[in-house]
Amino acid sequence: MAKQEDVFKKIISHAKEYGFIFPSSEIYDGLSAIYDYGQNGAELKNNIKQYWWKAMVQLNDNIVGIDTAIFMHPTIWKASGHVDAFNDPLIDNKDSKKRFRADVLIEDYCAKLEDKADKEIEKAAKRFGEAFDKKEFESTNPRVLEYREKQKTILSRMAQSLEKEDLGDVKALIEELEIADPDTGSKNWTDVRQFNLMFGTKLGASADSATDLYLRPETAQGIFVNFLNVQKTSRQKLPFGIAQIGKAFRNEIVARQFIFRMREFEQMEMQYFVPPGTELGFYETWKEKRLNWHLALGLGSENYKFHDHEKLAHYANAASDIEFKFPFGFKELEGIHSRTDFDLSAHEKHSGRKLQYFDAERNENYVPYVVETSVGLDRLFLAIFSNCLKDEVLEDGSERTVLSLPPALAPYKAAILPLMKKDGLAEYAQTIFNDLKYDFNLFYEEKDAIGKRYRRQDAIGTPFCITIDHDSLTDNTVTLRDRDTMKQERVAVADLRRIIDEKTNFRNLLSKI
Amino acid sequence: MAKQEDVFKKIISHAKEYGFIFPSSEIYDGLSAIYDYGQNGAELKNNIKQYWWKAMVQLNDNIVGIDTAIFMHPTIWKASGHVDAFNDPLIDNKDSKKRFRADVLIEDYCAKLEDKADKEIEKAAKRFGEAFDKKEFESTNPRVLEYREKQKTILSRMAQSLEKEDLGDVKALIEELEIADPDTGSKNWTDVRQFNLMFGTKLGASADSATDLYLRPETAQGIFVNFLNVQKTSRQKLPFGIAQIGKAFRNEIVARQFIFRMREFEQMEMQYFVPPGTELGFYETWKEKRLNWHLALGLGSENYKFHDHEKLAHYANAASDIEFKFPFGFKELEGIHSRTDFDLSAHEKHSGRKLQYFDAERNENYVPYVVETSVGLDRLFLAIFSNCLKDEVLEDGSERTVLSLPPALAPYKAAILPLMKKDGLAEYAQTIFNDLKYDFNLFYEEKDAIGKRYRRQDAIGTPFCITIDHDSLTDNTVTLRDRDTMKQERVAVADLRRIIDEKTNFRNLLSKI
Repeated sequence: MAKQEDVFKKIISHAKEYGFIFPSSEIYDGLSAIYDYGQNGAELKNNIKQYWWKAMVQLNDNIVGIDTAIFMHPTIWKASGHVDAFNDPLIDNKDSKKRFRADVLIEDYCAKLEDKADKEIEKAAKRFGEAFDKKEFESTNPRVLEYREKQKTILSRMAQSLEKEDLGDVKALIEELEIADPDTGSKNWTDVRQFNLMFGTKLGASADSATDLYLRPETAQGIFVNFLNVQKTSRQKLPFGIAQIGKAFRNEIVARQFIFRMREFEQMEMQYFVPPGTELGFYETWKEKRLNWHLALGLGSENYKFHDHEKLAHYANAASDIEFKFPFGFKELEGIHSRTDFDLSAHEKHSGRKLQYFDAERNENYVPYVVETSVGLDRLFLAIFSNCLKDEVLEDGSERTVLSLPPALAPYKAAILPLMKKDGLAEYAQTIFNDLKYDFNLFYEEKDAIGKRYRRQDAIGTPFCITIDHDSLTDNTVTLRDRDTMKQERVAVADLRRIIDEKTNFRNLLSKI
Repeated sequence: MAKQEDVFKKIISHAKEYGFIFPSSEIYDGLSAIYDYGQNGAELKNNIKQYWWKAMVQLNDNIVGIDTAIFMHPTIWKASGHVDAFNDPLIDNKDSKKRFRADVLIEDYCAKLEDKADKEIEKAAKRFGEAFDKKEFESTNPRVLEYREKQKTILSRMAQSLEKEDLGDVKALIEELEIADPDTGSKNWTDVRQFNLMFGTKLGASADSATDLYLRPETAQGIFVNFLNVQKTSRQKLPFGIAQIGKAFRNEIVARQFIFRMREFEQMEMQYFVPPGTELGFYETWKEKRLNWHLALGLGSENYKFHDHEKLAHYANAASDIEFKFPFGFKELEGIHSRTDFDLSAHEKHSGRKLQYFDAERNENYVPYVVETSVGLDRLFLAIFSNCLKDEVLEDGSERTVLSLPPALAPYKAAILPLMKKDGLAEYAQTIFNDLKYDFNLFYEEKDAIGKRYRRQDAIGTPFCITIDHDSLTDNTVTLRDRDTMKQERVAVADLRRIIDEKTNFRNLLSKI
């Protein structure tokens, strides 16, 4: 456990030190659960977006992409269910005046039980040494069994109470477990109430005519309300998809784990419109396609698993998450949902407009069914960044930190490094930079020892370092260093464009899907 | 005038009919001054972003790009002056309860005077026929002179009153001119007051601890508050720049002219940090560089002009707009501002942190000066879209509508069109699609007469149409049709990639800057 936390701290500090992610408004002591992408983070994030957009929109002639506004008509969130049902159960401590998510207080209590179980296992492991059989111990030790049984009972009761909206029982559970305010120890709690997670604002200046708006809590509804406009102007026939990348906002009470759960975040969503009755087939297809998209990144298939939902949201008739092994365990990365005709039908009802499609083959009008794929861009960034960040011990015993990003996603494709500034090396290096800059994002640096410069490029994931030395001036060759193998080879300047392109082009990822 | 309005209506309707821009939340009767980008608009907008990002960040080794959050610490807007000075003068009509921008009421009054002058000119032009000398008439006709003189007097008085924050005189002006509520005719006005244009929201759920936030009204401050983090982690020396593309929000009371002035919009801003005393030189350089960037699009140099500000904002010591000839006249497209050390110094004061740079050459610490380039992405979209949309009469007397976008910006680079579906033509066309799809965004369509399909591609700006016919099956050639010349030539399938790339690559734009 402690080790996991260390790993995670190292990730956060590397992200800041190397210009990937800064706490937002840091000089003003930051803004909780909001982060800014620095110069390398912005490039990596843009490249992840491009990989998704190319795979979804460019590779499929029946999927188009749109870009809808964050501000939408407020009735849309009534129709979608967000006004009535997009809530967290909150509880206030009467003494400290602090507010908590009731479910998180209970989950934290259970996490402590798990910690206790872990400690029993650790103690036993130390005592028994090599003879220790962890599985055997876990399944027989009465204390471990008790801790785990208790957790299970608590979590299942909480889930049932939340499902039934029995908030009184959630409070009863907190009191029975004698859960205290973690900061003050007070057990003086208010009742549990539901709190809506949407951010509100007001459009227009007149007190009479100002419209209460919400910042969208998901991008999907921007696709649904534009369904007919897109379908008609794009002349698409079912099945076809509409994709979108964009910001969404949720007023999370407990937002933790760095960029995994933020109050302002970005989604990459695709809604696939299909004839009623065919949705479950497409649902299976998209589960497979989306997993393959992730696997093409090469982060290791053992780090992914499906989690099929047993309890379905009100709009779904099938749903599954692709979970990824984050530094804090397997967590949701992407959701694939068979949303039925819930959203389009709800918008028909609330807007009074028909949102139907005429199916020439079936010779009938109907509201299409929808299969959705929805991935959190920031948590995907975190998945890739944390998986690729490695400390390596080299053959000579020295260490290096390398960010082994898929080359197509790397912020810089190559670094142009004159061995020294003088003797015309910098000028020659600039010629190479100017020749290649139209095709690739390049780093240029002429100071410091070359070994130091290599290490810095390793740390930000640059696939190639190109070193210009005195020989370059006479034979038009340079040293090309590979980030992963650290092998250096002498190549002709004239071959650089082809070599860099071969390794870093998006084709490498896209052709694997 | 009427003709200008017709042109503009045609632009708006083409944008909707061909999937570029839809009114937001249209099925709910729309949301004022908010628009959604459709399937072709999203691609065009993304390509404009890429052109800017590549030109600013990729081509300059001393400019990096970041991506900061919309939510920022509220004190930032105190420091920047937005809390105190980002206001519009509003006035309410007591009878209709409607609210107006006082300055816009007065400007509308002046526009009517201009209309009257135009009508005098039109009448005279009809009367005199070919003998009519417009310049001569304008400078001598007493009515035209009177209308124009009156406008000048009114606008100058209004500007002075607003400058001095003498809102009483703005109201007096409205009353003297007997300006009425345009809908009801009532002249029963309240006093004029200042209204802040920032959208507010609340972060966090607790009534005690909730933080009042603003949606950022500009992206620039996200760059300033990250200045030190970026400078240190990127190891940049002055001069260097930080670029950003992102959403901003302004609660405009009167938002008009389609996507020209929206309440939710996107900016592309770059802040260039320079040693104090050198800023005016860099200001001139960036004026020239930015104009060249626009000119490379090939929309016609006669459509651009500089408008140097005489009255400067509180933070600037020099400022100029690049104006573009929109369908409704020359209007601001981009601003280049020498912002001095106003922002960084203000953040030093309000945050209590040092925001200084150690200049090794000068051997001193100082707060850098800043030259800003700031372009509105949506109005740039409108500039390109409106300029490229043309009705052409062809040699045979028929007409076509063509969107002659710079090929690198076109939503689709080529359309793959089998002449018919049967005889294996569709399959062969799909082979070509699948071969080229990794490199280009392609359109595929197999229905309707080929002429109709060509016209549709013209209307969305696709540079090439590739037609597959029966000969293609035997000789591996296709017909390649050029959007602009409409010339068709027979080319080998094996040459398609090279031909499309040569015409549509961003290099074509970037190498002209």
